[in-house]
Parts: sequence; C-alpha cells; structure tokens
Amino acid sequence: MKPSAKPTKRPRIAISVGDVAGVGVELALRCAALQQVSNRCLPILYGPKPVITHIAEQLALRSDCQITDVGDVALNQLRPGLTTAQTGQASFDAFDLAVADAMTGHVDAVVTGPIQKEAWHDAGIPFAGHTERLADRTGARDVCMMLTSDQISCVLATIHIALADVPGSLTIDSIVRAIRLGSQAMTNRCDRDPRVTVCGLNPHAGEHGLFSHGEEANIIEPAIEIAREQGINVTGPLPPDTAFTPAIRARTDVYVCMYHDQGLIPLKALAFDDAVNVTLGLPIVRTSVDHGTALDLAWQGTANHGSMLAAIEMAIDLCRTDHS
Amino acid sequence: MKPSAKPTKRPRIAISVGDVAGVGVELALRCAALQQVSNRCLPILYGPKPVITHIAEQLALRSDCQITDVGDVALNQLRPGLTTAQTGQASFDAFDLAVADAMTGHVDAVVTGPIQKEAWHDAGIPFAGHTERLADRTGARDVCMMLTSDQISCVLATIHIALADVPGSLTIDSIVRAIRLGSQAMTNRCDRDPRVTVCGLNPHAGEHGLFSHGEEANIIEPAIEIAREQGINVTGPLPPDTAFTPAIRARTDVYVCMYHDQGLIPLKALAFDDAVNVTLGLPIVRTSVDHGTALDLAWQGTANHGSMLAAIEMAIDLCRTDHS
Repeated sequence: MKPSAKPTKRPRIAISVGDVAGVGVELALRCAALQQVSNRCLPILYGPKPVITHIAEQLALRSDCQITDVGDVALNQLRPGLTTAQTGQASFDAFDLAVADAMTGHVDAVVTGPIQKEAWHDAGIPFAGHTERLADRTGARDVCMMLTSDQISCVLATIHIALADVPGSLTIDSIVRAIRLGSQAMTNRCDRDPRVTVCGLNPHAGEHGLFSHGEEANIIEPAIEIAREQGINVTGPLPPDTAFTPAIRARTDVYVCMYHDQGLIPLKALAFDDAVNVTLGLPIVRTSVDHGTALDLAWQGTANHGSMLAAIEMAIDLCRTDHS
Repeated sequence: MKPSAKPTKRPRIAISVGDVAGVGVELALRCAALQQVSNRCLPILYGPKPVITHIAEQLALRSDCQITDVGDVALNQLRPGLTTAQTGQASFDAFDLAVADAMTGHVDAVVTGPIQKEAWHDAGIPFAGHTERLADRTGARDVCMMLTSDQISCVLATIHIALADVPGSLTIDSIVRAIRLGSQAMTNRCDRDPRVTVCGLNPHAGEHGLFSHGEEANIIEPAIEIAREQGINVTGPLPPDTAFTPAIRARTDVYVCMYHDQGLIPLKALAFDDAVNVTLGLPIVRTSVDHGTALDLAWQGTANHGSMLAAIEMAIDLCRTDHS
C-alpha cells in the first residue's frame, strides 16, 4: 500500500481460475467484475473459456472481462464438485500459461484460484502443487510459501509432505532461507525492521531436549543464530502452542513455521476469509487464495470471494513495490 | 454447571502449588482467597508451607487458607524463576500426596499448578508430566488429556512426545479411546449428544494419501468407524488447518487431535487465559491450569489467575456431576 512516486499504469493480473469443478471460476468472475479491482488493475482470467462462460450464465455473473482461453474440458462431462484428471490437467495448463506470460512480461503478476491436488496427481502431473511447480518452472531455488492476513503472517519451512517426513526434511539452510525471505517480504509491507518469530518443532519446543530428537538444538537454533548474524531481528525457537497467543502475536510481524499445519491452523482459526498465499523468492509476483476448491459449494454462487480479492490486492501491491 | 437436586457439601479441593520457583504459589493463594471459590469449595493448598508463607508475605497475599505441608525446599537456596532438582522433587511430592488423598477420599478433587517438566527430569522422576504419573499412580489405562475452554475443547491422542514419534505412536485403539472419553466428558457438560470432530494427522488430512504414510486410511478412519458403531456422533478425519475455522467450531463440541500442538495451538490462540486441562478416564477428578510456570513472572504478583480459577471451578462442577 505504499504510495508510488510515479504515475502508475494499471498492472495486468493473470487470474488462473483453478479447478473448474470447484469454486474458482465464480470467485474470479465476481472479483473481476468489482470496480475496486478494475480501478486498480486489468484482470485477465486464464482458463477454459466455454466453461467460464457457462458458469457465468448459470450464476448470472458478468463475463465481459478479458479471458485467455486455455485448458481443454468437455462441458458435457463436467459436473460441479467432480474433479477429474481432465479438470486437473486443465487447471495445470491454465496456471502454466499464466506463469509463462508473467515470465515474458505479458502480465505483471499471477493470482491462482484453488486447484485439487489429487486431480493433478490423477492427470500424471509430477508436482504436489502450485508452489512446487513454480520452483521448477522458474528455476528458483530459494522458494518459500507465506500465508498472510491482517492478523498473522506465516512462512512455512516445509509444505506438502507427510507429517512423518517433516523432522527429516528440516535443514539449517532451509530455515535460514525461510527466515530471510519472510523478513524481506515484511520489510516491503510493514516499513520497519520486521520482527520474526521462529517456532520450535516439538511440543514445548522440545522442553530442553526431553521431547525432541534434537531438532531444536541442532537445526533450528543454529539457523536462528545465522539469521541473527545476518542482521535479521529474529527470536525463537518458541513453544509452538504459546507462539500464537495474543501477547506473542503483538510482537511478531512474521512467523517461521516448521510444517504446514503449525502455521495454517492458527492462521485459519484467526483469519479464515481474508488470508492470502504468497510465493516468496520467485522472479515473478504470485499470490493465491488460501482455501481449497470447496467442492460442496461449487457453482452455487455462495462461496466467499474475500480471499481471492485479498490475493488480487496483494498482487497489485507487490507489483508496485517491485516496480517502483 | 448442572443444578444438583440434593443439598451439597462444599467439595474439598486439593490444589498442588506446582514448582515453587514459578507462579503457581501466588495463583493458588490468590484463588483460595476469592469469595467465589470459598463459597463453593474448601480449597486446600499442597506444598512446602514455609515457602508458601514466604511468598504470601512478599506479595502481601492472604495465607490463612488450609495448607497441607509437603515438599522439602530450602528457602535460602530458592530463587524466583530458578527451578532445580529440589523444586522439581518438591512439586512432585506435593502432587503425589494430593493424588493419594483423592484416592483415599480425604479430598474430592485435585487441581494442579504448573510444574517444570525439566526439573522433574533433573530430580530423576521417571514421568514426563502430571498426566503420565496419574496414569501410573491410579492404574488407569484409559487416560487422556483434554483441554477445554468456552471456545474450544480438545482431547489429545498423544501428548508429550517428540513430533517425529507421533505417527508411530497412533493406534486405532488409542484414537477410539480418545473419541469415547471426549464424548463422555462433554455429555456431562453440554447435556446433549456431543459432536466429536476428529482431525487428520497430515496436511489436508493426507490429500487422499498423497501427503501421508497411510495414517488416515489405516488408523484414523477405522477408529472413527468403530466409534460411530458404538453410537458416538463423530466426523472426520478433517484437514487440520480448516478444522478450527469458525464454521467447523460452531458444529463441534469436542475435537480429537493427533498431537499436542494440533490441539493446543488453536486452543491457546483463541482462549489463552481461561483454558483448563482435564485428565479423562481417571478414578479421581483432576484438573489443571493449561499454562506453564511462567518463570519470568514468578513472585511478582502479576500473573493472571484466570486459568487456575477456571480449573478450580471445573473441578467443582465435575465433583458435582460425579457425586450427584
């Protein structure tokens, strides 16, 4: 939200609609039709145009926005709420084209609607999700997922892996990187030296080694020490259960969490409808809704577009920050 | 809070003061002096009387409550905030006598102040915490920890173990037991068929096996099926990050969580000061504060007694329920 000194052109925001069997299309259509969106950016929907038009008609939504037709889905085989290998492949293709267009500068940022990871898997796509594909597609090695809302922001040191695989996946390097990227992201947003709080892995942060296989002492603490030597304002490792109490939240600009649910449980408990997913460390700007396909609500026109709107607004802000 | 038909005698509540280097003594003294407590129960503090009297004098707190002198701590070696093997042993001894008195009927319930688990360990006590000692002392095999507040209640399927050990520690039996004990506890409290929500272990509850080693399909789902056949109103496994959103909270009376922080992160984020720890499946009534020793606040008179007060009130309610 920093004011820009230069007169700014509206950024072109590619919105990949996600899995068309879910709520992504209607959220994208509804946001694209909002004056507060079109005033600040040029939204371009990426997805199968016949399906987008069909859903717009069904729900009486405006579909006069710009659409880049990509992804092959047979309308007569499509049911709301039923994801398939075909809808998975189409959601991947739309996302991939949006990213390609961002890499070549045809668009300024990518906002992604919700996909069904299982449908990607069924389509034979060898990536667990958007973030993993982005790291591969852009060649970025330093990539991290951040979830952010007015209440709380979390960078995740690991993402879409089984809980049993988390302890063995943590490295000093990956945690230093998460701390650094989180601190950088918040520097742009909060105009001060960001305060980073790092969570432990184990209950009570291991209670001095009692409930731990040494992850706090051997991995997390050394990572914090390195980040501190780099001049980052960082504390931890904190017991995960007390890290998200109001007192600690008040003195934290961004958390670094060891695993997916350590960050996403408090984030969604406190700020379900307005959280945004930002991929840090990429050469392009990419934000995303923080919710799933909500298959039970698909094509009913009742899904909440708060997170999609917040993702678009965050992308606009990041474009300004990056280009100013 | 059920009204009792019979005229009730005030229950005798043993309050073990916890580690005397922490905030437990002042919290116990302050609660015992409250009219709302003495109107409803006879509070009896369990701990080293010279230390309790000393802290009362230092903080100008009333100490005319009943005290059972137990635990050997040399006052001249004692510093606020500094737990030792001696303070650990004393906190264990006070707790153990309170439990023994509850088992013989000398008191009606035990409320425990915060201990330092590391100090128990330093004293050579072979139990990770209160709950583990209670299971051993009372011979109860079916014991589970529940954290409860006005906002949210969680039963934990595993407690004080390293995160890496959680997946291998889950069994169908332990989860069925957690579901059953949680449902029973809430039947007494909410006067209806309690709605139990079971969390998955992995991100997205494993996304149909993609981020899982089969724990949802092979352990959690069969446990839910068995509990349902026993007539319990239970749903799950839910993706842990969406399980604690307002919509799901509104249709949940009690959660069953797979590990310590899965339950305690949302509980403390939402209800830090008034949560109570209840040990389910014991032959005695036992509740506890849900916070730690707060060593940085010890002996200053500023620690919040909300959780201790809630633990005492919960113990009184459970005594009535059990004895009516």
